[in-house]
Amino acid sequence: MYTLFFSPGACSLASAIALAESGLPYRLQRVKFAENEQRSADYLKLNPKGRVPALATEQGVISENVAILAYIAQAAPEAKLAPLDDPFAFARMQAFTSYLAGTVHVASAHKRRGYRWADSEASWQDMAAKVPQNLRECYTLIEEDFLQGPWVLGDNYSVADCYLFTLADWLPGYGIARDEFPAVADHYRRMRERPAVQRALAEHEVS
Amino acid sequence: MYTLFFSPGACSLASAIALAESGLPYRLQRVKFAENEQRSADYLKLNPKGRVPALATEQGVISENVAILAYIAQAAPEAKLAPLDDPFAFARMQAFTSYLAGTVHVASAHKRRGYRWADSEASWQDMAAKVPQNLRECYTLIEEDFLQGPWVLGDNYSVADCYLFTLADWLPGYGIARDEFPAVADHYRRMRERPAVQRALAEHEVS
Repeated sequence: MYTLFFSPGACSLASAIALAESGLPYRLQRVKFAENEQRSADYLKLNPKGRVPALATEQGVISENVAILAYIAQAAPEAKLAPLDDPFAFARMQAFTSYLAGTVHVASAHKRRGYRWADSEASWQDMAAKVPQNLRECYTLIEEDFLQGPWVLGDNYSVADCYLFTLADWLPGYGIARDEFPAVADHYRRMRERPAVQRALAEHEVS
Repeated sequence: MYTLFFSPGACSLASAIALAESGLPYRLQRVKFAENEQRSADYLKLNPKGRVPALATEQGVISENVAILAYIAQAAPEAKLAPLDDPFAFARMQAFTSYLAGTVHVASAHKRRGYRWADSEASWQDMAAKVPQNLRECYTLIEEDFLQGPWVLGDNYSVADCYLFTLADWLPGYGIARDEFPAVADHYRRMRERPAVQRALAEHEVS
């Protein structure tokens, strides 16, 4: 039994979707950000970063979506959630998930979490104002270069799709209509139709 | 034959070290940042992100250290650069490389590349001033929680070590003595003794 530590609205949704797709036995456990539970001694023992997602396995805890997504795909090979037998295709998948984690999510975070990188209110406002421009640059690359269609890697669905859906779900919150990026919008709609995505949304986006 | 596109001083050093460790045939090709070659049409065709590293393989191009490092380990299994037969250990390695890419390198970049996330000079200065604090938090976690010793994953050397060395090499440039973090400093010294690291430094840190 796997336990995914999550917070509604957080990027842990990507790992929740992958678990729902995988057929692995799992439960979700909410980390109460409103009570600062992610900085509690108990949670920090589990994940010293004080962030979600974190996946508890029988062997120990894994953090970071990039790592968790590849792990889920490897732990459930019959679900075919990654090109496990093709190192090049696997690397292309990881180049995409790593880009989402290290560039797209980071760009987003400058809207509401500017305090991570600067101390003055004016800087936070300056960062927040630039977020739509940065995200549009990211999604232009995704639309034109990375999303092969119908799925990120082409014909084969993968955990990269779970992650793209999760970040694309945030776009309207940054004042960007998904329809500015037709391939991304189409991908998002097809993701929404998948039972695993619906299950993950129901379990993860609890109020 | 693999070709690694790099820039001296950039994080592409991590991939260069991994290649030198791997035994794979490779060459390094410099992208001239001073001439803005990373934004040239030719380079953008190769890597639309306009960044390094990028690894050209016979099948196509891979970007992102996290993806390239895992790929090199998989392409040269006899070099034993990752726990390829243990999905949990592999995930722990990837949690570490993903943390370096998405948190530690991002924290560093706010010193000289604040223009990526804000437009005013005052914001850039505010960001730059906070970098040492953020990096010390990152390296405290690395020192106390992630670096198992003697290598990142314990007894087994891996591509995670190539990446940690690369970012730890930058620390003095941020006004942080590596000796503030004794395990990191010890790791750095032992890395410097490896022939592959010396070869990569000689090939990558060209002036």
